[in-house]
Amino acid sequence: MQYELYYWPGIPGRGEYVRLALEAAGADYVDVAREREDGVSAIGDLLEGEAAPFEAYPPFAPPILKAQERLVSHVANILRFLGPRLDLVPDDEASRDWVHGLQLTMTDFIAEIHDVHHPIGSSLYYEEQQDEARRRSHVFRQERLGKFLGYFEDVLARNPAGKRYLVGDALSYVDLSLFQTVSGLRYAMPRAMAAQAPSIPGIMALSERVSALPRIATYLRSARRQAFNEDGIFRHYLELDAD
Amino acid sequence: MQYELYYWPGIPGRGEYVRLALEAAGADYVDVAREREDGVSAIGDLLEGEAAPFEAYPPFAPPILKAQERLVSHVANILRFLGPRLDLVPDDEASRDWVHGLQLTMTDFIAEIHDVHHPIGSSLYYEEQQDEARRRSHVFRQERLGKFLGYFEDVLARNPAGKRYLVGDALSYVDLSLFQTVSGLRYAMPRAMAAQAPSIPGIMALSERVSALPRIATYLRSARRQAFNEDGIFRHYLELDAD
Repeated sequence: MQYELYYWPGIPGRGEYVRLALEAAGADYVDVAREREDGVSAIGDLLEGEAAPFEAYPPFAPPILKAQERLVSHVANILRFLGPRLDLVPDDEASRDWVHGLQLTMTDFIAEIHDVHHPIGSSLYYEEQQDEARRRSHVFRQERLGKFLGYFEDVLARNPAGKRYLVGDALSYVDLSLFQTVSGLRYAMPRAMAAQAPSIPGIMALSERVSALPRIATYLRSARRQAFNEDGIFRHYLELDAD
Repeated sequence: MQYELYYWPGIPGRGEYVRLALEAAGADYVDVAREREDGVSAIGDLLEGEAAPFEAYPPFAPPILKAQERLVSHVANILRFLGPRLDLVPDDEASRDWVHGLQLTMTDFIAEIHDVHHPIGSSLYYEEQQDEARRRSHVFRQERLGKFLGYFEDVLARNPAGKRYLVGDALSYVDLSLFQTVSGLRYAMPRAMAAQAPSIPGIMALSERVSALPRIATYLRSARRQAFNEDGIFRHYLELDAD
């Protein structure tokens, strides 16, 4: 079957967390807004409850995944749905809840990373909240960045199956998400991340391993992979990075 | 079996979303930090990976639910876990994914409500970010409050089973969460919520119905229910409410 991913074009954004799972598994999917002429309006139809047969189930925001008669939204919910279908999660329920919990911590991390450059409101331009962003960035780099990264480093170190993956002895979707977040942070805050690197050798190595997975390596070289830019979650503003 | 809820004492906070599900179902549970002498240090042990047999699975933050040999963290993950066990979610997987997606939208809403009074950082006092909070509150009340509330109103109106519950024809955990969020907002921003009320008759009525459920009504009158206060998510600061 063919999955359909609905996400805004022009940024990797939160859609990228879903794309990486689909790509890692070699799944058949359409990136609707980028591959179909009416793709963006198709997103609007879903959000407004005008897309049959999903009128009663309007998602709040993209990304949205359509899998035949199923519609799922929110990155973590989509990945929880895809995990067993793409063999990107262990078989037992306890492990699945653990992976999902890790993904929800990732969700919180991503929201905080976004709000560094948009502390007052998403509807305002960055330039309208630059002073507040500088202040938030300082707090984020001092307290939050290392706390989240250190948490995933600790999870990796404690994995009873070894430090090759966050959970168990095989790739799961949260490994892919960690790769994406680490990549985005290295783009957005290269100096702050260089300072963090010595403290997080395990997740830096894991990110490298993910990027070298054959399907992921092929994807990263393809036109399907979009570059980070200053409309997305991870934005490179010199004044928000470490000195 | 007896559930154990681990959450900081002194605030309803995110723990309250779990408590309401346990209370609505009449489940047997211990609110560990409030009922056991060493409860707060027990939370620390879990977070630090020092609580057997969960050393390899440190949660990032409370609330945390222990159910015999299972440990689950994040409100939405806990409610997803409890839903089928407490009969607070429909039976089919598609409905469960839909309820979980709604709960994840609630998670985002709650995070935005919190950040109204803490736009720069959770580690700073409100008084250290009061100017930024006023600005964020203005944007939140103009753009976000109505968007989220209107979304849930729309979901309720579209429910094919009728407007009595958000999903299907029976109470689910996201109804309880909506009640808690509406209650918190009415405490924090009574003037802004009074202005919203005429636009959201369905979810205002749903909140009333939830509060009148026999077990919930009993709970709300009990000492187990903690009042909202200015250490929690929902804080009543006059200067952050509408004029």
